[in-house]
Amino acid sequence: MASSLLTTPSQTLALTPATARARGAQPAAAQVSFSSPRLPSRRALRVRASVAIEKEVPENEAPPTFLREDGSGAGSGSVRERFEGMIRRVQGEICAALEEADGSGARFVEDVWSRPGGGGGISRVLQDGRVFEKAGVNVSVVYGVMPPDAYRAAKGAAKNGAADGHKAGPVPFFAAGISSVLHPKNPFAPTLHFNYRYFETDAPKDVPGAPRQWWFGGGTDLTPSYLIEEDVKHFHSVQKETCDKFDPSFYPRFKKWCDDYFYIKHRDERRGLGGIFFDDLNDYDQDMLLNFSTACAGSVIPAYIPIIERRKDTPFNEEHKAWQQLRRGRYVEFNLVYDRGTTFGLKTGGRIESILVSLPLTARWEYDHKPEEGTEEWKLLDACINPKEWL
Amino acid sequence: MASSLLTTPSQTLALTPATARARGAQPAAAQVSFSSPRLPSRRALRVRASVAIEKEVPENEAPPTFLREDGSGAGSGSVRERFEGMIRRVQGEICAALEEADGSGARFVEDVWSRPGGGGGISRVLQDGRVFEKAGVNVSVVYGVMPPDAYRAAKGAAKNGAADGHKAGPVPFFAAGISSVLHPKNPFAPTLHFNYRYFETDAPKDVPGAPRQWWFGGGTDLTPSYLIEEDVKHFHSVQKETCDKFDPSFYPRFKKWCDDYFYIKHRDERRGLGGIFFDDLNDYDQDMLLNFSTACAGSVIPAYIPIIERRKDTPFNEEHKAWQQLRRGRYVEFNLVYDRGTTFGLKTGGRIESILVSLPLTARWEYDHKPEEGTEEWKLLDACINPKEWL
Repeated sequence: MASSLLTTPSQTLALTPATARARGAQPAAAQVSFSSPRLPSRRALRVRASVAIEKEVPENEAPPTFLREDGSGAGSGSVRERFEGMIRRVQGEICAALEEADGSGARFVEDVWSRPGGGGGISRVLQDGRVFEKAGVNVSVVYGVMPPDAYRAAKGAAKNGAADGHKAGPVPFFAAGISSVLHPKNPFAPTLHFNYRYFETDAPKDVPGAPRQWWFGGGTDLTPSYLIEEDVKHFHSVQKETCDKFDPSFYPRFKKWCDDYFYIKHRDERRGLGGIFFDDLNDYDQDMLLNFSTACAGSVIPAYIPIIERRKDTPFNEEHKAWQQLRRGRYVEFNLVYDRGTTFGLKTGGRIESILVSLPLTARWEYDHKPEEGTEEWKLLDACINPKEWL
Repeated sequence: MASSLLTTPSQTLALTPATARARGAQPAAAQVSFSSPRLPSRRALRVRASVAIEKEVPENEAPPTFLREDGSGAGSGSVRERFEGMIRRVQGEICAALEEADGSGARFVEDVWSRPGGGGGISRVLQDGRVFEKAGVNVSVVYGVMPPDAYRAAKGAAKNGAADGHKAGPVPFFAAGISSVLHPKNPFAPTLHFNYRYFETDAPKDVPGAPRQWWFGGGTDLTPSYLIEEDVKHFHSVQKETCDKFDPSFYPRFKKWCDDYFYIKHRDERRGLGGIFFDDLNDYDQDMLLNFSTACAGSVIPAYIPIIERRKDTPFNEEHKAWQQLRRGRYVEFNLVYDRGTTFGLKTGGRIESILVSLPLTARWEYDHKPEEGTEEWKLLDACINPKEWL
């Protein structure tokens, strides 16, 4: 998940020449399938899309905005502009807080990239610090073209009355997001993931009455190797407080959605102890949802940094570390096998290093490892198998 | 790949209750898709299949045969019987050779399992030995039911004249195979993978003239972290010698097939330095192909053990080890994202520990790691990006 704009086809234009070179026989456009965005439920519709290939270009420094200067973005006070501003501000704040928590003088290394047709991103990675094994905080802005099937499916689901059966052409879309995975070294300090994203389509010019679409998605979730109730309760209570400011239905709904999403089916267990997750959110006021996303992103520091401060120097032994490494293996399994953002990014040739920065520095797989019942390892696993209410 | 019968729907009946419990809402049959077997080219046809759920049961000791006592298998001198005998004999020989090479007194741990409807398997794993970090050698025998679509596709491709358009019912199949991944500790000692399998369908009773089908698949491939030409040439020359005894076209054809199969598309590089790979092989005499598979499986020890003996005690430093760990990360990426046996096994709920024994004990992901041109690390990577002719 990490670096990609999870569940959005944001990487539609991110194909690299590597993909095109594959076996020397691929055409300039590739067939990929992805989940249709903005279905109000979690049902994913698989559609076939022809996508153009456009490689990202490294930049020396971040431009003031990645938005196109076409009146719809930069300088317009639009939601896209405000969302880009928010994620770039949050990226800076979180990286500063993490560097301070790391306390080693280690700094995030920054890679800036852009695409010729518009958009770009900033990847920031801190690797092998004192507290953090690997921490990635990425923002990206993507302009792409959505295949008509995906738009029609979204439109139908939204019941907005545009003429059905009318032949639509490809629909331009815009996506922006912040995405992050933080893997600490100490086995008692949990891994954190968060991702907030905003998506817009143009109104298709060739379908009278078909509207412009927009939606928000995102979430923050905690993946400890050991279950320390105080930490999990603190984390979930910050999520709930943030949600409750906007709608009392949000926390219970998005908490369950998170438990359902981070499910490792072949293990019948969740990746971690959840948090919140939502997608395709557009049935509220747009400003309210922008403010909600902003509040969620802003709650990452108060939700996580106090836990890191408490656990970063907890004494541990080799067995604790080996168990953490096994749980890291599960993290890899979830991200490579199930995560929609990762699997979509890999298929379409997104910026691989940004996508896979979500993977831990190190991971471990032991044959048939089963923690003994009643142990601390077993308690964590039990909570991953049977999601609990923490509040 | 490892433990599963790669590219065969051998795990169709391997669904576990875990799969059925997923989100508490799944029916007793699950929708899965898999590659149609026996297409003469490598084109894979995706079909939808309803599969039954049958959980494996642990056994105390391996029975003389996993074949059903229905006249088609045990005691009949049939190809299935001879193939099962071969893979079980080879499993014993290879485990003995590996224990001797490990030289630590470490022994393979054995798990035997069966399925109520027939079939079963023996998983053998040696973990954390002196020479081997993780070595898995598995055999399995599976009885299942192939959906009619898959059978029709295979039949059509084989041009065998059965009435097209005739409505066929599900077709019973039989699959048996040996599968192994060997990860040594020393960064100069390469990882080895091999897998040999045999597949049969019954003649569908409700389609007059539709024949019984059978085919062989398999291969052996080498994944070093450092390119030592002497080792790669030795390995490939054993593959070629084995192939040449049967057909001079085999080595060039199966060498290329191997390079194409073990391709990590999102990296534009191969997992390793190849070997041989073939699938859907039935356009030769059945006895000849049984003998060929037997010879291939028999060539694993002479192809690999001399390399292990030469490299198991080579001095190495932390940088060599870190590079090996990064290449192990690539191994994980290939197996979880692309390998057909693994991805099919995970989707259908095969015996997870047997499937994932192919993963290394430890692996590593560094952000944007690029070996400097001209270094030993770069030479290996270059050979993974640009497959070479070794002989």
